[in-house]
Amino acid sequence: MRIALLGGTGDIGEGLAVRWGRDTDHELLVGSRDPEKARAAADDYTETVAAAGGDATIKGFDNAMASDRADVVVLAVPPYHVADTVAAVADTLDDDDVVVTPAAGMKRDEEGFHYNPPGAGSVTALVRDAVPEAVPVVGAFHNLAAGRLADLDQDLGIDTLVVADDDAAAATVSRLAEEIAGLRALSAGGLANAAEVESLTPLLINVATNNDDLHDLGVRFD
Amino acid sequence: MRIALLGGTGDIGEGLAVRWGRDTDHELLVGSRDPEKARAAADDYTETVAAAGGDATIKGFDNAMASDRADVVVLAVPPYHVADTVAAVADTLDDDDVVVTPAAGMKRDEEGFHYNPPGAGSVTALVRDAVPEAVPVVGAFHNLAAGRLADLDQDLGIDTLVVADDDAAAATVSRLAEEIAGLRALSAGGLANAAEVESLTPLLINVATNNDDLHDLGVRFD
Repeated sequence: MRIALLGGTGDIGEGLAVRWGRDTDHELLVGSRDPEKARAAADDYTETVAAAGGDATIKGFDNAMASDRADVVVLAVPPYHVADTVAAVADTLDDDDVVVTPAAGMKRDEEGFHYNPPGAGSVTALVRDAVPEAVPVVGAFHNLAAGRLADLDQDLGIDTLVVADDDAAAATVSRLAEEIAGLRALSAGGLANAAEVESLTPLLINVATNNDDLHDLGVRFD
Repeated sequence: MRIALLGGTGDIGEGLAVRWGRDTDHELLVGSRDPEKARAAADDYTETVAAAGGDATIKGFDNAMASDRADVVVLAVPPYHVADTVAAVADTLDDDDVVVTPAAGMKRDEEGFHYNPPGAGSVTALVRDAVPEAVPVVGAFHNLAAGRLADLDQDLGIDTLVVADDDAAAATVSRLAEEIAGLRALSAGGLANAAEVESLTPLLINVATNNDDLHDLGVRFD
């Protein structure tokens, strides 16, 4: 399978690229607005995987080219770039592609981080509105600490929550998630349940901030 | 210590009563609008603890009497009864008492449960507004599956999140939480961070609903 990581030079893109690079045979397409940056990141991730004993196929492209070549397109961009990024690649999306959104809208004040969804109700809903209607959208990978994900020496042993209205797309993304060692995919239901999933991201940051011995937190449902 | 469980005939009150009853020597005061119901529940909980090999001191009172006698007052009532319950006991609260709120506002639609905070921003904020200013308020015990908590045969092995602006009150409640076997207390910061904590409650229900092998879910931060 070909997986595009749009905005893949950022930290969540890096984490997913090196995990899939080490743990699977999927072809990984790092996308960026700047294809030179994408190629440099792809080379960097390939070296990281090689240093961990893996042999990954990771290439860099501009976002539209990465999206065009991919079966699964991950919007690994900050929430305020989601709409622009989807607009830039919308023509490249086929009905049998799957778009994945891991972003959560947050704001920070002196107390901590707070969930701050866009007007659509969640970033996932915003993506659903922006992506062509026939292309399924899946919310996943929100609650993974990017630094831990990118550090292949760290075991995961955590869960990721999947929301989708299309069962086949949900199954594809859940399978891709569980191909990462130590990651379990759990369904949180339909896209309408995305806000509660996205709210977990600021909560994880607040818990990590307020407990000295915890950092790069994930969550396990038990 | 004396702990009042207002609305303690409900499921979260039962769970906390039998856990503290089995695992600690605290005196537990079950409160209800109907003192007869409170006494019947207290007897029932005492038997449950005895059947598990424990020896608990659990008594039943009307809510105001339970609150008046307690050092820590837990508002184990549904969110729509929180304001009424606080109003009924406000005169009994002393400055060295601690009020604990475990409730989360939720609404349900065909997709699942959704966080539905009151106008104050969170149930915790509503409680803070309703309780006399000098009495500290702590949010805790939101994310415990009541059925699992009340079943003393089930191990917990889960976390509860604590939010508070008063460090001493937070420490008291965290200590009470960790006296329950298998429960770890983690700080999620100040009361301003309560909404993200309360949002975890509908999320846990949605995850349990959508995964066949999961029920009575708790969460572990790792």
